Amino acid sequence: MNKSFLPNDTSVSTWIWYPGDYEIWLSNKMQVRRTEREAVFPPLWRYYSPYPLVTFQTEVDIPEADDVKIYSEGSFQLLVDDVQIYGQPKSIKIPSGKHKISLKVYNQEVLPAIFMDGKYVKSNSSWVVTNEDKLWIDETGKAQQAGTPWMPVGTWNFNSPENKPSEFQLKTEPWNAKKVEKVGLSELIDFGKETFGYIKIHGLKGKGKLALYYGESREEALDSVKCETLDYLEFDGTQPETYTHHGSKAFRYVQVQADASVTYDSVSMLYEYLPLDYRGSFKSSDDLLNNIWDVSAYTMHLTTREFFIDGIKRDRWIWSGDAYQSYLMNYYLFFDSPSVERTLLALRGKEPVTAHINIIMDYSLYWFVGIYDYYLYTGDTKFIKTFYQRMKTLMDYCLGRRNKNGFLEPLEGDWVFIDWADGLPKTGEVSFEQMLLVRSLEAMAVSAEIASETEDQKLYQKLANDLKTKLFDVFWDEKENIMKHQRIDGKIQDIVTRYANMFGIFFNYFNEDQKQSVKNKVLLNDDVLQITTPYMRFYELEALCAMGEQKFVLDEIRDYWGGMLANDATSFWEKYDPKQSGKDHLEMYGRPYGKSLCHAWGASPIYLFGKYYLGVKPTKPGYAEYEIKPNLGGLQWIEGKVPIPNGDVSLYCSTNEIKLKASNGMGALIINSKSKPTSNYGNITILGKHQYQLKIQPNTPYHINYKAL
Amino acid sequence: MNKSFLPNDTSVSTWIWYPGDYEIWLSNKMQVRRTEREAVFPPLWRYYSPYPLVTFQTEVDIPEADDVKIYSEGSFQLLVDDVQIYGQPKSIKIPSGKHKISLKVYNQEVLPAIFMDGKYVKSNSSWVVTNEDKLWIDETGKAQQAGTPWMPVGTWNFNSPENKPSEFQLKTEPWNAKKVEKVGLSELIDFGKETFGYIKIHGLKGKGKLALYYGESREEALDSVKCETLDYLEFDGTQPETYTHHGSKAFRYVQVQADASVTYDSVSMLYEYLPLDYRGSFKSSDDLLNNIWDVSAYTMHLTTREFFIDGIKRDRWIWSGDAYQSYLMNYYLFFDSPSVERTLLALRGKEPVTAHINIIMDYSLYWFVGIYDYYLYTGDTKFIKTFYQRMKTLMDYCLGRRNKNGFLEPLEGDWVFIDWADGLPKTGEVSFEQMLLVRSLEAMAVSAEIASETEDQKLYQKLANDLKTKLFDVFWDEKENIMKHQRIDGKIQDIVTRYANMFGIFFNYFNEDQKQSVKNKVLLNDDVLQITTPYMRFYELEALCAMGEQKFVLDEIRDYWGGMLANDATSFWEKYDPKQSGKDHLEMYGRPYGKSLCHAWGASPIYLFGKYYLGVKPTKPGYAEYEIKPNLGGLQWIEGKVPIPNGDVSLYCSTNEIKLKASNGMGALIINSKSKPTSNYGNITILGKHQYQLKIQPNTPYHINYKAL
Repeated sequence: MNKSFLPNDTSVSTWIWYPGDYEIWLSNKMQVRRTEREAVFPPLWRYYSPYPLVTFQTEVDIPEADDVKIYSEGSFQLLVDDVQIYGQPKSIKIPSGKHKISLKVYNQEVLPAIFMDGKYVKSNSSWVVTNEDKLWIDETGKAQQAGTPWMPVGTWNFNSPENKPSEFQLKTEPWNAKKVEKVGLSELIDFGKETFGYIKIHGLKGKGKLALYYGESREEALDSVKCETLDYLEFDGTQPETYTHHGSKAFRYVQVQADASVTYDSVSMLYEYLPLDYRGSFKSSDDLLNNIWDVSAYTMHLTTREFFIDGIKRDRWIWSGDAYQSYLMNYYLFFDSPSVERTLLALRGKEPVTAHINIIMDYSLYWFVGIYDYYLYTGDTKFIKTFYQRMKTLMDYCLGRRNKNGFLEPLEGDWVFIDWADGLPKTGEVSFEQMLLVRSLEAMAVSAEIASETEDQKLYQKLANDLKTKLFDVFWDEKENIMKHQRIDGKIQDIVTRYANMFGIFFNYFNEDQKQSVKNKVLLNDDVLQITTPYMRFYELEALCAMGEQKFVLDEIRDYWGGMLANDATSFWEKYDPKQSGKDHLEMYGRPYGKSLCHAWGASPIYLFGKYYLGVKPTKPGYAEYEIKPNLGGLQWIEGKVPIPNGDVSLYCSTNEIKLKASNGMGALIINSKSKPTSNYGNITILGKHQYQLKIQPNTPYHINYKAL
Repeated sequence: MNKSFLPNDTSVSTWIWYPGDYEIWLSNKMQVRRTEREAVFPPLWRYYSPYPLVTFQTEVDIPEADDVKIYSEGSFQLLVDDVQIYGQPKSIKIPSGKHKISLKVYNQEVLPAIFMDGKYVKSNSSWVVTNEDKLWIDETGKAQQAGTPWMPVGTWNFNSPENKPSEFQLKTEPWNAKKVEKVGLSELIDFGKETFGYIKIHGLKGKGKLALYYGESREEALDSVKCETLDYLEFDGTQPETYTHHGSKAFRYVQVQADASVTYDSVSMLYEYLPLDYRGSFKSSDDLLNNIWDVSAYTMHLTTREFFIDGIKRDRWIWSGDAYQSYLMNYYLFFDSPSVERTLLALRGKEPVTAHINIIMDYSLYWFVGIYDYYLYTGDTKFIKTFYQRMKTLMDYCLGRRNKNGFLEPLEGDWVFIDWADGLPKTGEVSFEQMLLVRSLEAMAVSAEIASETEDQKLYQKLANDLKTKLFDVFWDEKENIMKHQRIDGKIQDIVTRYANMFGIFFNYFNEDQKQSVKNKVLLNDDVLQITTPYMRFYELEALCAMGEQKFVLDEIRDYWGGMLANDATSFWEKYDPKQSGKDHLEMYGRPYGKSLCHAWGASPIYLFGKYYLGVKPTKPGYAEYEIKPNLGGLQWIEGKVPIPNGDVSLYCSTNEIKLKASNGMGALIINSKSKPTSNYGNITILGKHQYQLKIQPNTPYHINYKAL
């Protein structure tokens, strides 16, 4: 059962709100939970707010009178057929027949939300809502209403009256320490691996101070002067014997330093997490790779919380570029659509647009591409239809920041990120940004079509085409047959980087000849500025996989992710430089423990293994059609599952055997084989030399024999 | 001492916030306090929200180290010279010399605000604030910041740490009942006059229910089924003997209906009000007029609360058209600038503009004119400089809603109000709306100049000139020599109303000939649709005063306002029709007690007496220069005070004597006299036949003898 479809189930009652507002409210709350040595550390971008006053409305046609219970977050005015019902009733009897039910709800502290529950009348995704209902009464008492902007309501999974949106908490479960040791006057608790949650002290007695110094590494927890997070607790002697600290932190180790007057028996923790099924899986004949997949999945789970965040110690924020990779990994692990939607909405905020998302130019653009992929993987059109206007106003903002040549070039306050890389030029016209804009415009064209905005569709498609042409005219070096990095004041700079070159491959903007040239002259060329973040490794390896370099990529993964494991990683890092050693791995941003040791962008093997080794990807929105192109990359065998809407594709592949079953959709299995394969079902057709195809019907256990090249 | 200047005093510490946000927050809270028989009755327009995350900043240069206390509404990150200070310190020592102090404050429940108090470092109007600080740390730990939109902070008068903005309460004082009578099983309490506040029950005992039925009239309080407001209380026997109800209401009478099991000794109330001095005054030889001024002032005070509201029973909302009159009346009674600013800001909200203010076309326009007047009366340029962008975006919205002829014509969702008047045409192009737009554009031109937006100044002045020309081209009937009301589909309708004609007079858009024609053919013509609301009576009488018809107007006031007093009014009403009698006066909007009996727009005599009888008005911003043109309107004598910035003009005028003293500014006393007046100071000059002028120096007690015409 695909959880992502629950929010639109209209057979149950659920809490409803103004679409996007809950995500704004919750992300505001979540993102200031980052602390640095007890200072609150909020994001650097602007916060939006929920509408404090909204009107919910539905029209019903019911066969008999219905006793409907009313629950509300906020005080309300209830109107049935435009007639006000006095008081703040806890229930109402709606007579049989057609009726219009409206609730105008005010809540400035959290956000207005309601839950209505009758036999027929139920609050759910079929309702509409507005932030300006414009319902007025003229002098004679006649009600007037015009120009009201109605929207479909927002929902998640708050399906009982007690389960209030404002009281949302992630799930927790108790974890015990793996190891406890005395270090000086302190105790160092080791939970065995990277984790996130609330410290719990048992058998606590006495009066005085107790300090908790957290560390993702042993070094950090022991360094009470420089560790990034800590809590100073003070007990007056009246506290309960079992104390749970209210603030959640990321750590593997905790150093506990208590006054002599304070004693305790032991320290445990509550592990906090978003309850999601691991619907994707991967196993192979290489245990190192299996371990890399497992640690990637754990890294991904730790960073998949209220929203997809960058890292659990730092920043604990929602960054669009980081989140974009989480969306992609999510499609191969959880396939949890609500998490993608929540994150997209939190990032976008509302009107007006006054800066780029996260104030980063590339991060506005990833947002559009993320929506394109969301549609491709899930087939969901409701999100685009509901939020098309917010897409459009953000795109207006981006287009408004082009220079006279029609290229994005940073204006004051625009941060061009691309990647953390020493000496990477980011000023002037950068080809990478233009390429992302082309893709974003294509995403807008697709979205405009879904939103039935025909004129917009044409406009965006033309803008995309024109910009793409210009991108190649200006940045493609016909002589070198590669894409240049930058133009300043009309002058192409003699700089080549991997960024636009690798995106051009999997965006499919290059022809075959261009691709080969880019692969050899850029991707496989060690003289081109190396990538040291798992963030851009993600795309670099994807580009190589897209070029069929699965074997090479596996070696890179063994080296790079295997290198982190060899350095005792229990989750993957923000940055990894194989040339560093020991404590140097922990340093970043000029701080000895500045680096995040659990960073979502470190989990990319989930995506690569699912898409380029199990080889499953949608070719029509929502996996209505899809491709399965297994690639062993030199392994003996691989097996696993790739989630799709309402099911999965499960696959085993060795050098001579493929076993395959898919829940739904129409698949195309593509097999590279020395000889024509045989299958227990269906007809195998020839695509080219050593390449064969088998159409995959749903719910059919395929067993294919073939001969790997 | 002019209280309006306090907020800008930088010698004290005061709570500071993002400008306009407190007004939004407080108005959201206030406007949903309207209830109708326990249903919450929120406004029909959209609510905005404060920014939940802002950064306050100041730069100081201090002669010695300063111990600065920090108070915050919300958790914060403190940076001194861009370096983060750990924890949430309650105080900090700032070293001597130059320093930058920043506080990033988060508060999603109320609004972020801080109070810092040292010997040198003080939070006050000299600080700046932003909602997107864009301060980020690059990979190497270097801080970057660009494109941050800084604004001057907002303040009011929260000048001590305990006096938190989020805990703002109006003042209260205990009032006793004037009369108590048994009516059936109930008790009817009469407080003697219209009032506002909290019911207090003394000697309360027992367990059970008690109902409070409020009435602005005796009839309403006694009608438990139809009265507009009520409270159902329930006591469990454990309540204190003195119970104060939490919800404030407007009433003169309260019917108390208690279960036999509930007893009490007496009922009183807490009168709730904004503490303001009555700086203006008026007395004359006619006691009825004096009474009218007193009841007007009381009506004005009751409706001058957190903001200028329309009525205290209903709507308890901030309507721009109503508020515009309150601003004008305020200049002749309280001269309280913060009340004007708070109201302007609450009405405007923030970006984006998605509808007219209060969804009414004319109400967007009054907002601009209100700012123009605010500048004229107070001379304050800071408000315009701070909020010029909000003026501009609202004007963009208005201009964007013009039709192809360049006229405002209602689009879907636009409500054209003008006035409550039976059969008043409001569709198509209405001359009144265009005239308000001309004035609004003039206000924008003046404001653009103050904001140093030279290009804008030219643009708005041209738009104003062009529209004014077109207004006369289309709507001025050269034959009839009056302004027509409406054009539909290019056809002028044969309708004349008072609205544009009377505004054209005191906007000074007509020449002398046009004015006389309008006066005779429209204002003094009973066949033209009569005005029945004090709202438009305000302008009608102003136009007549501007034409020198003070005597006629006094008779109108005696009739109209005197008529309400004769009907036992203790505050002035939303609407008054002399043809009605008894209970019919209470009815409106199809409800028997729907009419508000205390409505700000009923208080216009304050304005008329001050501006057109005492005759004081600014001719240069902030009363740098002003006119005093007393007019007895047939009375034996008048006397009173008109507040001006930092003082007042006090005046006595009889048929042969004028006594006058002004605190500051340069005045021009204009005297109509049969013979040349004599004065104890200064030189009297001749302006024309029977008209003389005397320049008034500050702080000089003038005594003039003259002979009234």
